[in-house]
Amino acid sequence: MSKRFTLKRYLPILVWGPRYTRERLRDDLIASVLVAVMLIPQALAYALIAGVSPELGLYAAILGLAGYAFFGSSSTLSVGPVAVLSLMTAAALGKLSINSAADYAAAATALALMSGGLLLLLGLLRLGFMANFISHPVVSAFVTASALLIGLNQMEYLLDIRISGDDAVSMLRSLIEGINNINYATLSLGVIAMLLIVWCKSGLQNGLLRLGWSESRARLIGRSGPLLVVVLSAGCARLFNLQDYGVVLLGTVPAGLPEMRLPSVSLELIRALWGSAILIAIIGYVESLSVGQVLAARRRERLNLDQELIGLGAANIASSAGGGFPVSAGFSRSIVNFSAGAATPAAGLFTAIFVAGVALLLTPVLFWLPRYALAAIILVAIVPLIDLGMLIRSFRFSKADFTAVLFTLLLTLTIGVEVGVAAGVLASIVMHLYKTSKPHVAVVGRVRDTEHFRNVQRHKVETFESLLSIRVDESLYFANSRYLEEMIFNMAAKKNNLKHVILMCTAVNEIDLSALEALETINDTLEELDIKLHLSEVKGPIMDRLGSSGFFTRLTGNNYLSHNQAVEDLRVAAKPDNAESDSQDKSKDDTAKGD
Amino acid sequence: MSKRFTLKRYLPILVWGPRYTRERLRDDLIASVLVAVMLIPQALAYALIAGVSPELGLYAAILGLAGYAFFGSSSTLSVGPVAVLSLMTAAALGKLSINSAADYAAAATALALMSGGLLLLLGLLRLGFMANFISHPVVSAFVTASALLIGLNQMEYLLDIRISGDDAVSMLRSLIEGINNINYATLSLGVIAMLLIVWCKSGLQNGLLRLGWSESRARLIGRSGPLLVVVLSAGCARLFNLQDYGVVLLGTVPAGLPEMRLPSVSLELIRALWGSAILIAIIGYVESLSVGQVLAARRRERLNLDQELIGLGAANIASSAGGGFPVSAGFSRSIVNFSAGAATPAAGLFTAIFVAGVALLLTPVLFWLPRYALAAIILVAIVPLIDLGMLIRSFRFSKADFTAVLFTLLLTLTIGVEVGVAAGVLASIVMHLYKTSKPHVAVVGRVRDTEHFRNVQRHKVETFESLLSIRVDESLYFANSRYLEEMIFNMAAKKNNLKHVILMCTAVNEIDLSALEALETINDTLEELDIKLHLSEVKGPIMDRLGSSGFFTRLTGNNYLSHNQAVEDLRVAAKPDNAESDSQDKSKDDTAKGD
Repeated sequence: MSKRFTLKRYLPILVWGPRYTRERLRDDLIASVLVAVMLIPQALAYALIAGVSPELGLYAAILGLAGYAFFGSSSTLSVGPVAVLSLMTAAALGKLSINSAADYAAAATALALMSGGLLLLLGLLRLGFMANFISHPVVSAFVTASALLIGLNQMEYLLDIRISGDDAVSMLRSLIEGINNINYATLSLGVIAMLLIVWCKSGLQNGLLRLGWSESRARLIGRSGPLLVVVLSAGCARLFNLQDYGVVLLGTVPAGLPEMRLPSVSLELIRALWGSAILIAIIGYVESLSVGQVLAARRRERLNLDQELIGLGAANIASSAGGGFPVSAGFSRSIVNFSAGAATPAAGLFTAIFVAGVALLLTPVLFWLPRYALAAIILVAIVPLIDLGMLIRSFRFSKADFTAVLFTLLLTLTIGVEVGVAAGVLASIVMHLYKTSKPHVAVVGRVRDTEHFRNVQRHKVETFESLLSIRVDESLYFANSRYLEEMIFNMAAKKNNLKHVILMCTAVNEIDLSALEALETINDTLEELDIKLHLSEVKGPIMDRLGSSGFFTRLTGNNYLSHNQAVEDLRVAAKPDNAESDSQDKSKDDTAKGD
Repeated sequence: MSKRFTLKRYLPILVWGPRYTRERLRDDLIASVLVAVMLIPQALAYALIAGVSPELGLYAAILGLAGYAFFGSSSTLSVGPVAVLSLMTAAALGKLSINSAADYAAAATALALMSGGLLLLLGLLRLGFMANFISHPVVSAFVTASALLIGLNQMEYLLDIRISGDDAVSMLRSLIEGINNINYATLSLGVIAMLLIVWCKSGLQNGLLRLGWSESRARLIGRSGPLLVVVLSAGCARLFNLQDYGVVLLGTVPAGLPEMRLPSVSLELIRALWGSAILIAIIGYVESLSVGQVLAARRRERLNLDQELIGLGAANIASSAGGGFPVSAGFSRSIVNFSAGAATPAAGLFTAIFVAGVALLLTPVLFWLPRYALAAIILVAIVPLIDLGMLIRSFRFSKADFTAVLFTLLLTLTIGVEVGVAAGVLASIVMHLYKTSKPHVAVVGRVRDTEHFRNVQRHKVETFESLLSIRVDESLYFANSRYLEEMIFNMAAKKNNLKHVILMCTAVNEIDLSALEALETINDTLEELDIKLHLSEVKGPIMDRLGSSGFFTRLTGNNYLSHNQAVEDLRVAAKPDNAESDSQDKSKDDTAKGD
């Protein structure tokens, strides 16, 4: 990967474009049809979740795909409206007091522009690593909670009752309150629609394969469940005038393509939305990377983390230029794109063209699309996002991870998506600091007739009168440097006749300035008690750093390459006469030993 | 240390009280006189820094000392008003729009109650470890910046010019603007006062020692410089009516003791001050621990971190009950207390009695105390707090530490104490995550004729055709798990004929759920490429955790105790025939290898 500034680095299309072949065109076209079939109903539905009119979902899909195709580095990621970001968009805009639909849509567009700009900036500054600070279980818990919230919210259309509130508790309450008013017609039709989608994906697809259909064709049919539901339910609604029976239809979707113009964003809007824009940018990026990295690895390709930021940034800015809302790579669509064999980002461009065709020509059909059908499509689409097993896995694995996961899940469900994800990220960082703040510290002794040293509490080992061998199983840094002082002072206080403390540093990967100061304090304090501090088995990079800081000239003891050598050296040096004077010293009143 | 709930655990006075001896009484009395001599002028001065009337400084000292004496666990910490917390109090209250002095004092009292309550709560919940999350260089930079701000602020009284603003830039500007109006009378008297204090501490004390005085007496005189300055300057002011020459006097200090009552805190005040209260609690606690832990270690005692929270909490609540402001353990006063031989917390009680005596009887004298004299006392007291060498030390030691230190220093000086310390804490955490998010990952090979494995880029080692040995020098957790995936996929993609990847885990002290998921992803993705993943030299606790998670049943390869054994095992198993089929596979079009 060249580090030079070249146009090709920032515009991957210049790399794959000239090498485009007829074979790749075929692969890309097949994949793009499959993705478009999934994307169209999802784009409409996620626009409604975000709170904007459905055609904006199509626009966001078209422009997001096109923006990513030019700048993105993955050949398989399929960008467009996604459930979680739409929910986050609705949550962010719900906090503002906006009355008109036009202002609301403008605010959603501003959000896309802001998070797109942020992603672009992070990419140009090569700050892609920031996504690493977010723990995967936390993201997973957040996505699970978001999917549950979306599912609850969609009950409004499936059951035809009013679901109010933004949190799970009030949604559940209104669900229970409305339980007597359920419209069994929409419920039955919705359930049938869901079953149809599931059956297409499993029963029908496998049946066709058994009938000898090619895998790509069978998959195409299998994935068309949502499209089938759209066509069938819109047809029924038209034929039987279902709106007369209380079935809510999507209504007028204006035909046409997005008008391109850079949205104007007021300073006031920036002030109100910057926090939300950051969260949307981060979650969109992390979600996109999670799937992108695995798909790239399966093809032995490598994802460029910084270029991904630029690609997603371009997608969001493009979406906002057409009046769209925040977009990211959809999990299931990307997997479909991958398994259908999408060879280059051109697949995304072709998908965009198909979606544009629908936006131009087929909107009259969409008028008749019942909301319950969209709800059914969303409900099926979000099931794979719900991972309650994470609770159990994290509980079994470690209390720290479980705490962060539970925290994120509960706060997202009960307080809101923004508080939930922010608290989750914070919790995972605090939990990490907490874990490493009390590292495992063992007093070690020598396994007889060997040069190996092991924990005295776990093994039969030999220890030596005036020596204390301590092994710390963690890097030393600010969060544990005070604990280190405390542990060593405590261990040293317990042992009489102590002359030498040897710190075994095999597991110390890093020492920061706080830890260096702690070591200096330990060294100086032990010196006053007439105890020498030694180090052993310090790693190369840490050795260099300690050396340049002048620590070794201050160290009362030595720095040994091997712990065994240290013990051999010191158990001979320190013996009876010294030990005697020390024990005399000990007999004095403890509190009088001040200076 | 007993874990049982006993009264003695929460009330250390019940432990040392019954064992009190005449000898300890003598030691405590000597130390308490020394501390009181330092404390009285400091308490007056720090009250003025906090923005409240001087007698409240005496009250905060009396009650803080008494509160800590009953609940604190250190025999040497000397609690009372301290420069940094007074500055933080002024900064916190400066943000509110308070007009009357009484309301201002009430808000300062509320701040003491809130941070005291918080400390108490953290102590009862045994959350003392939270202080560890704050890097010492950051605290040191913050204290340095605070001391510089206080120094600039005191120029108002030393030079008798108006110093306006809360930040270093505007203070410096008003200093330069007022440079022609300097009152050389106050400046000369102030400089003389500072020289007197310094001379007492060094020249006079050493002189007395040479004359054969006992160390404790000589030290008593040496430390009385501030008291001498108070007496002499007040005397001069009275004799020569210095106020007629423009010298500002302290003015009326009401005689008497604090009236005890629990302050009423409005919900509005809580909402406005909670952030400041948290910062004051944390900084007060961390500063107090820094000195307390070292002093305890010198006496081979151990500080109970949770009990310290309770002790400081009690001190602040007591201070607030008498109308005082936030208190903590003073650095220099605690060292004096320690070296004077304070044997128990009773020394603090005796100091409180001496201060109370002054508050009752000597306030008429304080009327005549010139402000320049207090400024001189403060300026001498804050010099030891200024540690600009930290900038150089951190710059030499590591860029990460330097960034956090510089950040804290600059933001505290230019924006404010609260932003400064919060940004510093955040910066040190982000820097730590950043450092560990890109751990050192080395491909290792075997040193010929040994069982040792070393970095192939640094040593002459043998490697094997279809094997890749990778050593990660860091614990695996969320911040580096994505990087780990990326590195391994990248290394695996570079090497043809690869059959086995062995991850050497000698330096892995911890694995969290994100890292487990990353390992699962690596395992599954490599499996699709027909490459097996093996682990070697996994530490005991991690082995247990991975085992219970079921990872080993999923692992395509084995888990080896020694890396050499893994290599011996696998280099035999995987050979020519496999390698051939693999290279055929490689010849196909990369992009067609999807599934």
